[in-house]
Amino acid sequence: MILKFKRDCTSEQIHEMESKLSADNIENYVVNYKGCRIIVCNGNVTDIPEYIESQIIKTPYKLASKEFQNEKTIVDVDGVKVGGNKIIMIAGPCAVENQESLIEEAHFLKSIGTDFLRGGAFKPRTSPYSFRGLKEEGLKILAEAKDETGLKIVTEVMTPTDVKLVAEYADVLQIGTRNMQNYQLLDEVGKSDKPVLLKRGMSATVKEWLLSAEYILSQGNPDVILCERGIRTFETALRNTLDLSVVPLLRELTHLPVIVDPSHATGKRSLINPMSKASIAAGADGLMVEVHPCPECALSDGEESLTFQQFGNLMEELKSVVKVFGKAI
Amino acid sequence: MILKFKRDCTSEQIHEMESKLSADNIENYVVNYKGCRIIVCNGNVTDIPEYIESQIIKTPYKLASKEFQNEKTIVDVDGVKVGGNKIIMIAGPCAVENQESLIEEAHFLKSIGTDFLRGGAFKPRTSPYSFRGLKEEGLKILAEAKDETGLKIVTEVMTPTDVKLVAEYADVLQIGTRNMQNYQLLDEVGKSDKPVLLKRGMSATVKEWLLSAEYILSQGNPDVILCERGIRTFETALRNTLDLSVVPLLRELTHLPVIVDPSHATGKRSLINPMSKASIAAGADGLMVEVHPCPECALSDGEESLTFQQFGNLMEELKSVVKVFGKAI
Amino acid sequence: MILKFKRDCTSEQIHEMESKLSADNIENYVVNYKGCRIIVCNGNVTDIPEYIESQIIKTPYKLASKEFQNEKTIVDVDGVKVGGNKIIMIAGPCAVENQESLIEEAHFLKSIGTDFLRGGAFKPRTSPYSFRGLKEEGLKILAEAKDETGLKIVTEVMTPTDVKLVAEYADVLQIGTRNMQNYQLLDEVGKSDKPVLLKRGMSATVKEWLLSAEYILSQGNPDVILCERGIRTFETALRNTLDLSVVPLLRELTHLPVIVDPSHATGKRSLINPMSKASIAAGADGLMVEVHPCPECALSDGEESLTFQQFGNLMEELKSVVKVFGKAI
Amino acid sequence: MILKFKRDCTSEQIHEMESKLSADNIENYVVNYKGCRIIVCNGNVTDIPEYIESQIIKTPYKLASKEFQNEKTIVDVDGVKVGGNKIIMIAGPCAVENQESLIEEAHFLKSIGTDFLRGGAFKPRTSPYSFRGLKEEGLKILAEAKDETGLKIVTEVMTPTDVKLVAEYADVLQIGTRNMQNYQLLDEVGKSDKPVLLKRGMSATVKEWLLSAEYILSQGNPDVILCERGIRTFETALRNTLDLSVVPLLRELTHLPVIVDPSHATGKRSLINPMSKASIAAGADGLMVEVHPCPECALSDGEESLTFQQFGNLMEELKSVVKVFGKAI
Repeated sequence: MILKFKRDCTSEQIHEMESKLSADNIENYVVNYKGCRIIVCNGNVTDIPEYIESQIIKTPYKLASKEFQNEKTIVDVDGVKVGGNKIIMIAGPCAVENQESLIEEAHFLKSIGTDFLRGGAFKPRTSPYSFRGLKEEGLKILAEAKDETGLKIVTEVMTPTDVKLVAEYADVLQIGTRNMQNYQLLDEVGKSDKPVLLKRGMSATVKEWLLSAEYILSQGNPDVILCERGIRTFETALRNTLDLSVVPLLRELTHLPVIVDPSHATGKRSLINPMSKASIAAGADGLMVEVHPCPECALSDGEESLTFQQFGNLMEELKSVVKVFGKAI
Repeated sequence: MILKFKRDCTSEQIHEMESKLSADNIENYVVNYKGCRIIVCNGNVTDIPEYIESQIIKTPYKLASKEFQNEKTIVDVDGVKVGGNKIIMIAGPCAVENQESLIEEAHFLKSIGTDFLRGGAFKPRTSPYSFRGLKEEGLKILAEAKDETGLKIVTEVMTPTDVKLVAEYADVLQIGTRNMQNYQLLDEVGKSDKPVLLKRGMSATVKEWLLSAEYILSQGNPDVILCERGIRTFETALRNTLDLSVVPLLRELTHLPVIVDPSHATGKRSLINPMSKASIAAGADGLMVEVHPCPECALSDGEESLTFQQFGNLMEELKSVVKVFGKAI
Repeated sequence: MILKFKRDCTSEQIHEMESKLSADNIENYVVNYKGCRIIVCNGNVTDIPEYIESQIIKTPYKLASKEFQNEKTIVDVDGVKVGGNKIIMIAGPCAVENQESLIEEAHFLKSIGTDFLRGGAFKPRTSPYSFRGLKEEGLKILAEAKDETGLKIVTEVMTPTDVKLVAEYADVLQIGTRNMQNYQLLDEVGKSDKPVLLKRGMSATVKEWLLSAEYILSQGNPDVILCERGIRTFETALRNTLDLSVVPLLRELTHLPVIVDPSHATGKRSLINPMSKASIAAGADGLMVEVHPCPECALSDGEESLTFQQFGNLMEELKSVVKVFGKAI
Repeated sequence: MILKFKRDCTSEQIHEMESKLSADNIENYVVNYKGCRIIVCNGNVTDIPEYIESQIIKTPYKLASKEFQNEKTIVDVDGVKVGGNKIIMIAGPCAVENQESLIEEAHFLKSIGTDFLRGGAFKPRTSPYSFRGLKEEGLKILAEAKDETGLKIVTEVMTPTDVKLVAEYADVLQIGTRNMQNYQLLDEVGKSDKPVLLKRGMSATVKEWLLSAEYILSQGNPDVILCERGIRTFETALRNTLDLSVVPLLRELTHLPVIVDPSHATGKRSLINPMSKASIAAGADGLMVEVHPCPECALSDGEESLTFQQFGNLMEELKSVVKVFGKAI
């Protein structure tokens, strides 16, 4: 059960309720959501004062559920709206590799109508002996690309102590697949005022994913964008198995926007174009695509990056595709 | 390595080659493919006579590979072409339940432009205590529906000794997911002159799937339609995980047409519409959808069946969707 | 609900009950189990005559459940008891390759105390271009090995029409992993009087596996031995993932004996010895191990076969291992 | 390729080599391992001075591989040796819940010969609305239990900034399954002087697991204990699928000790006893078992905890089991 306090409630009233719940041995968690105080209770409460509205939400995630909020969340990233009628496009290299190449790419991406520049400054790598990113230097290059082009920046943060630093440069904080259940990191981005792009864990169920979103929401940050990026299955023909059915499924379960990353999902350049279109058809709010000036010389994930020309073609082709689904791009 | 005999070769020449290979201890299999004699050899052959053309095919499936045949196979089902520019629609109930209801449904499906009527007369059921289908009686009802409407019939055959019987009534023989590696059944439908719709095994890799198609092709039946219907993964939110990326992947690996069954893949009525559109966007040649006059009273799979109205809407909406991908319906 | 008829019931009484159930629209299935007539009903029945004992069994499998029969089934294979205090050992090559080599192996296996000789005469192969076994010739070689050594024979049957033939030679009919849901085949071995070794499907849940056993039991054959042989998961370091926890789990769910095949489960020779011991420790009733006179020259599965010496060592080591678990070998 | 510097090398020699490698554009990482300086290079180096020994290691993990170190690592936890002849037993509640109950349990565990007390003070929870542990208060209770009984303490650390705090109280730092690829956390425990128990990620391959161990080793901490705790598969009958074959597989790949957690792997109390024995039979160096004074009133994971009596029985039964495998307990 959740208890929503009316907007003019005093903190005394909130504390009083907390004490009552604790006295009754009902576990409870006070959260802020879009300026409202809410108590999430594990158990049902009786004798609820009139300044509180109660709601029973059957799913374990509360704030993330459609039961709680029926209208879709539109995440406003400094004017670029994610979750509305416009399909948003996030593109860029897997990792920020050097200033010149990123700036060149940013100009290209801007010129064809991309909304966000992606690029890793902090890179999670399976092996300790792989390139782990340029770190703050990478963030600065991203900032420069933003200054020059106006593209918004999406970049990954891997550990709680880096959240402040990354938030200085990024417009959207990305949580990678390996960190979907890094709870201190979720808490920390939940306290940030920057929107969060939350990738699905590679073997996370939809329920677990929404509970990870709930970590962020329950810390007071309502701006979470979900990103499907493929799951791990027995099939080895492709890097991951893109679980595209979760896009319409999430529409029924949550009000949060959902985008798709066909690059990591398939790991295969030639499949990015058709699977981008399929993602739009399934109802995705946007796409996150790896693009590299020279995929074969990329420091990571080259085999799943599009060339400029391939991405240009995709953008062009998407224009008519999104229209048939009543969307713009 | 495969050896293709020129069309005017004598059977002596073929036998001679077989003897030579056996003498050299090279395992070999003689197959017919579209009127050509081909020997598939596990090993390389030298001194090849000029009436034989040899080809090295790197994949374990040979006839099914694009290396072997680059142009797409178009399966002609009595005038309805699968694999061409037109998206084909297969619809109907999970199981044939009774005459009246099926005939009514067939008329409806025909009226809105469906190409094929599906319906199980022989039903594979996890429990021995579930309805296993009307068997020959069900086939007769399908035949009647065909007579009345002209719809082509797709229906499942589960065991080699039933192939002849089912082929008398069906236009396309369906091999279900549990039988994808029932090799005697594959051999038997390979000897039939009816096209075969081969569903992917629920935990089959793409390679295994194409090798099962190869069983059929190598028995002389070139008309195989592949059908993705979801795979089994850790995710339990939906019945299966629709592996839609295999649609464009198969385009690169094989010349065979590929369709998608979003009903079994998702197991959830509300997802069939968006995932049908996503399948088209990914490049599928057709769709197989469960439709039932009264889903909640279906003997099996009701929760994944569309009502007539829902399927009518889907057909209507697909008209503009397929156009943007350069297809007709 | 199941209805058990007392032993002296007349067939009139059975027919009467069937008619009553059908009149009441209760789906029902009459089965024989160890000489008793039982009706399995999908629904609850009232007004049960005193010559019938009713039982509500909550699991979808009925005859296979411990609720139905608490004492363990001991399958008696012509004097060799599977499921009792003695661990049974099944060993032999993947496929029967030739007479001389199999007879030699049979003598060796007999000399060190093996109970059963295994060997495939009919081989399910992923590719149509692989050796599919010696068929009836292979069965005859197995029979000869039995004549010479007294070893019981376990061999696979792949299709319903071969059941009679294979049952002439085999002491135990093996259903392979790809055929666990080949229902006509299950029906057919259910009508045979030979015990059945039912391998788990490579992606079958425990519930599905027990329902496949139920197919056999419900046809009147009570002698089913379950065989865990590894499942398909994301892990590619080994051929399959041996799901050993199902051994004690099945003990709680079913009265049927359970053995383990560590050869197919791991696909790696060096792991067979430790995983055999682990299987015994987990409570398995027996082991099925591939042994080949010359693993590196085997026509199939050489890399997972033990040499004679390795299998001899294993048998020797198992003697003290089984003792600590209160078993004999 | 790795380059091992002789013990008397100067830091000038090391820097010189680094410069040479960087000049040659060979990525390189300097690590400390048991007092030796080693450079791991992505690429091969020629002209190696005589004070450096080079070795080519084919696996992506280097220090963790048996190629690098053939003799088994024995982790010495203040006198308790993990990886030697003695099977080590780690037991305790899922979470530290209160002082009284933990002290009582510690006395019991000590009395029957347990080596380590486990208990979570920091708890990773799928939902933000679940009990997350007593944090430092929990650590203090663990310390008190250690003071009273002499049991060594294993407890989880979830985030880099907590490593120092947890290391003050713990004898072994546990990295949980969700954090196996939390690389900053791995780096940080790699800099600690406390041994690390590294649980396998719930969908991690063996290769990824060993690369996570490599993160720790390459930071200079040689004391890593691997812990198999079940993987995520399609099977839902149990909480996870215990992948026991990795125990003998890891023996061939790495010198690090391996223990098994049958509680989390199965999630079912009645399976812990047989799967503990199976783990020993497979070659595990120890076991980690959840034990709770009152499993049904536990704040988390009650259904997978043993009672005192059940754990007492297991310890008693293991005495004869370990002996047959040449081990002590």
